[in-house]
Amino acid sequence: MSRDICIFQSFLTEALRERIADTAEEIGFIPHFFSADQFEAASACLQHCEILYAQSPALLRTAPASLKWYCSSTAGVDVYCADPSVFANPDCLLTNSNVYGVTIAEHVVMVTLMLLRRMPEYEAVVREHRWSNQLTVRSIRDNTFTILGTGNIGINVAERLRGMGAAKIIGLSRSGRPCPAFDEVSPISALDEVLPRTRILVMALPGTPETVHILDRRRIALLPADAYVINVGRGTAVDQTALADALNAGKLAGAALDVMDPEPLPKDDPLWDAKNLILTPHVSGNMTLGYTCEQAVDLFCRNLRRYAAGQPLEGLVDRKRGY
Amino acid sequence: MSRDICIFQSFLTEALRERIADTAEEIGFIPHFFSADQFEAASACLQHCEILYAQSPALLRTAPASLKWYCSSTAGVDVYCADPSVFANPDCLLTNSNVYGVTIAEHVVMVTLMLLRRMPEYEAVVREHRWSNQLTVRSIRDNTFTILGTGNIGINVAERLRGMGAAKIIGLSRSGRPCPAFDEVSPISALDEVLPRTRILVMALPGTPETVHILDRRRIALLPADAYVINVGRGTAVDQTALADALNAGKLAGAALDVMDPEPLPKDDPLWDAKNLILTPHVSGNMTLGYTCEQAVDLFCRNLRRYAAGQPLEGLVDRKRGY
Repeated sequence: MSRDICIFQSFLTEALRERIADTAEEIGFIPHFFSADQFEAASACLQHCEILYAQSPALLRTAPASLKWYCSSTAGVDVYCADPSVFANPDCLLTNSNVYGVTIAEHVVMVTLMLLRRMPEYEAVVREHRWSNQLTVRSIRDNTFTILGTGNIGINVAERLRGMGAAKIIGLSRSGRPCPAFDEVSPISALDEVLPRTRILVMALPGTPETVHILDRRRIALLPADAYVINVGRGTAVDQTALADALNAGKLAGAALDVMDPEPLPKDDPLWDAKNLILTPHVSGNMTLGYTCEQAVDLFCRNLRRYAAGQPLEGLVDRKRGY
Repeated sequence: MSRDICIFQSFLTEALRERIADTAEEIGFIPHFFSADQFEAASACLQHCEILYAQSPALLRTAPASLKWYCSSTAGVDVYCADPSVFANPDCLLTNSNVYGVTIAEHVVMVTLMLLRRMPEYEAVVREHRWSNQLTVRSIRDNTFTILGTGNIGINVAERLRGMGAAKIIGLSRSGRPCPAFDEVSPISALDEVLPRTRILVMALPGTPETVHILDRRRIALLPADAYVINVGRGTAVDQTALADALNAGKLAGAALDVMDPEPLPKDDPLWDAKNLILTPHVSGNMTLGYTCEQAVDLFCRNLRRYAAGQPLEGLVDRKRGY
């Protein structure tokens, strides 16, 4: 009996498909490729596959109980953990793809500089063909940062901030385990103590029950009035109403959200027009960057060999813990 | 007879004034401080000063022939070199202040990422409360850069791009002298050869007769259609009409200009609305960043000691060469 892999991805170039096909065939698997417009065909094929590589809860729902491994090409897998019914097989392995660190870190550096350098205000000036150039700017150099989440994204952000002369980078993680990219790492339980000495808060946390509204109204009030908040993790981590209130009241200097709750943000949501807020429609980690796509495929191929050899998979998700 | 310094600067905090006063008094000078709204008083005082620290050609014009050193707090001094009549004393020393590398490099990183990540397009989407997130982005990582000008600004830009994983950084300078921040440095005469293999061109050149329209229509056509142009040096370095034509025709992917010719840009200039162009009103090196102000004052104080000791000054400008 053949061992089949269903691959339902639109980001794969011809070269990337070949890379997967070569690896699969080498270890005795047959890959079946489908793009986003071939849902029915993918679902039919999936019925005799033991592996699914996709980013589609809907397709996963159609998988048989014989599916052994679902590899998500996304970093966040909250949607699969929050609702176990997406898996017909309760023991199906779930892996995520932590390959977005570079592209998301570049997004974070960009919006950090846009906030510190008052870019939205200058853009408004320029749209009116006006000339005004004396807004007070700030710098990454000599500034202090707190990064919530010390995974692939947090580390890539920290490395770039360090390269630009950041004075202090504090990491916060569940374990509080030290990591060389950060000056200090504390457990998330120390958040209340860290917020008052934070100038720029970067949030890169997975979506789990513990992270829902981790930045709530009380904690927003702990930040200095000249602080900035940047969220590239999950929209649920921030109390958006409280954030908009703080921004509009000048109790925060600014914010940049690439993730929101819900997405898309409703047309009439007050967040769209909050003061000093840079919104982007969940683009920081999209799959259009060649580097990201290559990293994703490399990870899948590495894991395919591990799977075939019975070794533990990279990025294996504890479905109860949620990441 | 007392030796007097006229200081006509608005960026000086109380602490920075004290730093200057302490240094001056230590070596037998008397500093006289004036802010921007005290032109007449400054000019009256200037009549018995041998040093002027300012950024004002108008004030310099009122200086006596006994002025021995004019320290400009700007990096660019083209205005003083193009018109020698601003100096009553033809032998007056002119120094500039190369202290803008950090803040201008942060601006360059910001606009580079904004261009590569299609930020102006996403901002237009968000202004309409729309959700659309599949524009193809590019990355600093693995990209190739050409930096015109290997001075304080060029080096700071190169270091930051390197820290973000740039694959290749070519520097171009008058001398072509190697510099560790760059993978290779060529003389500016090699520009025609370098442009076709440039993906992002960063221009940080002083304003001299040689740099006027150094990026002219012919050279813009040598850049690949997916290239970006960033100018933080002098507006005169770019043929703006040719640049706007190339942008509007899709023969360049985008550009970011912080400097223009003339400044302010006239209200009806077609440049304001050129496609994929990020304009900023000469803000990349403004004097609002505390770090920049401190660097400027440190440099002035260092030079004050050198001046008193008869040593050569840092940033001494060859008024004929223009920088």
